[in-house]
Amino acid sequence: MATAAFPELDSAKESILVENLLQWSLANGLVIYPPDFKSYQPVSAPVTLFPTPFPRVAFKDADDVQLLFNELYAKVSSDLEFLSEIIDDLAKFDSGFTGKLWEIFLKAKKIGISQPLSLGIFRSDYMVNEIEGLKPQIKQIEFNTVSVSFGGLSTKVGELHRYLNNHGDYDIGEGTDKYYDEKDLPISKSITKLSEGLADGNYYYNDCVSNTKTVVLVVVQHKERNVFDQRLLEYALLTKHGVKSIRLTLSEIDSKTYIDPQTKKLYIKSTNDEVSVVYFRSGYAPNDFQNEQDWENRLTLETSKAIKAPTLLTQLVGAKKIQQILTDEVILKKFLKEKGESNFQQLLDTFVSIYPLDDSERGKQAKKLAFEKPGNFVL
Amino acid sequence: MATAAFPELDSAKESILVENLLQWSLANGLVIYPPDFKSYQPVSAPVTLFPTPFPRVAFKDADDVQLLFNELYAKVSSDLEFLSEIIDDLAKFDSGFTGKLWEIFLKAKKIGISQPLSLGIFRSDYMVNEIEGLKPQIKQIEFNTVSVSFGGLSTKVGELHRYLNNHGDYDIGEGTDKYYDEKDLPISKSITKLSEGLADGNYYYNDCVSNTKTVVLVVVQHKERNVFDQRLLEYALLTKHGVKSIRLTLSEIDSKTYIDPQTKKLYIKSTNDEVSVVYFRSGYAPNDFQNEQDWENRLTLETSKAIKAPTLLTQLVGAKKIQQILTDEVILKKFLKEKGESNFQQLLDTFVSIYPLDDSERGKQAKKLAFEKPGNFVL
Repeated sequence: MATAAFPELDSAKESILVENLLQWSLANGLVIYPPDFKSYQPVSAPVTLFPTPFPRVAFKDADDVQLLFNELYAKVSSDLEFLSEIIDDLAKFDSGFTGKLWEIFLKAKKIGISQPLSLGIFRSDYMVNEIEGLKPQIKQIEFNTVSVSFGGLSTKVGELHRYLNNHGDYDIGEGTDKYYDEKDLPISKSITKLSEGLADGNYYYNDCVSNTKTVVLVVVQHKERNVFDQRLLEYALLTKHGVKSIRLTLSEIDSKTYIDPQTKKLYIKSTNDEVSVVYFRSGYAPNDFQNEQDWENRLTLETSKAIKAPTLLTQLVGAKKIQQILTDEVILKKFLKEKGESNFQQLLDTFVSIYPLDDSERGKQAKKLAFEKPGNFVL
Repeated sequence: MATAAFPELDSAKESILVENLLQWSLANGLVIYPPDFKSYQPVSAPVTLFPTPFPRVAFKDADDVQLLFNELYAKVSSDLEFLSEIIDDLAKFDSGFTGKLWEIFLKAKKIGISQPLSLGIFRSDYMVNEIEGLKPQIKQIEFNTVSVSFGGLSTKVGELHRYLNNHGDYDIGEGTDKYYDEKDLPISKSITKLSEGLADGNYYYNDCVSNTKTVVLVVVQHKERNVFDQRLLEYALLTKHGVKSIRLTLSEIDSKTYIDPQTKKLYIKSTNDEVSVVYFRSGYAPNDFQNEQDWENRLTLETSKAIKAPTLLTQLVGAKKIQQILTDEVILKKFLKEKGESNFQQLLDTFVSIYPLDDSERGKQAKKLAFEKPGNFVL
């Protein structure tokens, strides 16, 4: 990598950079709807002018540890006994949302959950901890298990920065090499990988047969602005795997889908398309549920035979409280008993102290610390 | 193809079709800037909801005859003696524009034209003449030789309609096959082919060496709205051929480029990039020249060593008057003497009567006809 973190451009070159960046974004789907949008008019998605430098070793660590995290959260999602106690407690603190999700899960369990499989589409967020003389370390901020966004656009951001570099928009002098070495500008495979995940869901739903008659139902927010992030995955799913997707809001579920009472299979009413995977890009915030019918619809989906991405349990294990509990080495080892020391160390290295915000002694200490040195903490 | 020209959708399905069409367009660069635009905010380009049916045989004819037309216009462009008389005349009728272009060409000729090669990027427009019982025929409306637009977006329009068909948005019932057979939805190779044309220009400029140090200069209109149509060609040029392009308006030429007085090579000032091809997406309308300096800049480009797409002469042969004269079989045969009868027939079949709009007898007749039956004519 070049010596300075960013190329220093004069204002004329910076104007050209901005124009080239915006037009590439608009020509390549790196877009988002603005507030109060018209359906034919997006804006370019906000991005940095230059690629953000990130230590290669920390990048590699994040890449390496992801499968372990996926496995950990998948195992936690399956341990109902362990979860019941924690979430029962949590539900009391946040009865309007976590409590409701838990209540719907318990109802679904009573009715009967007809699909044993669940699809996890996860995103682990980090900041880098750089201390002079030490190897830079990734520290986990949060682990997301529902409606994980920007997997579509992030591939495009990498492509954008690479285009700008190839096009010479970062060049600071004549006759010089490109400012960035292309190998320092990785392009995320997120579009390919996440659409593969959805295609895998479809495949396992159909007993390991590549069925392109069944469809993926994308549950979206009303007036969703981040449509294109989702669309890029849907287009890859259709183009590369031949699997169609249908978009409905949570409140449209009862009027636009139906369930076969015998098989519990979920269908789209207008086309009789059978749904293999329900991909939630909604249902993660209290506002996504406008009324009791919306909760009822969530229950309908949970008890259907379609594979959920994610199930209510997988969504619930994304709670910060679970993240906190998993920083306990003893608990970690309980879930990953067959793993070796180096694997535990990989995970432990990404942890920082997480304080509860309850009335416990440690919760009280947390509040004190947060008020004294707010700059030291992530809420 | 299915029996009806278009699928008949109920209003619910039509709404979904419109939403899917708009979002695909916005995610895939099928966009344009609206009037008074902000650089970060395009709109979807206007397209038809359904593919427009076009007789296969006529489509094939248009495809087949294009190379002949290209050759014909290339030969006419090179016959200065033939052109001089016609354009001398024409220049008197339209002294403000055609006259000016001709004057600049004559000046350039006097100074010396240092580049013998010219790049033609053409588009031939047709309407179909359908008479019951006869084979549908293409009839040429006009032949474009400068700033040919929509080569970028037209590939995208084909991809859009194919996506909508694959996604089932044209399906009229359940369990049916796709409304259109995929082979009836051709996708134009225009992005690939036109960017190849520009890359070829770069190659021949460099004496048949694949040089990726020289750049293509795209001369654009001030506040161009059809940017993305052009960008799609530029991106393909960079991605597939490694050739960079720079965009400047005609009025920026004197301040942002310079010419080596010895070699007549054209360079971009800020980067010292050598220009191999000047691709005009401006300079075809009187408004594109705001003042004498703009005309001076056009002259500078014409006398530079860069290959022009097109040269002034090639631009001038796109005049309707030339198109009219070329419908004369004797003149046609003069330019394509080595061709066979079937080739002439191919060209002649696309011609309709073209009337002059001058004070000749035929011109007077034309005005009379146009006033009597305006619906029968294309102006």
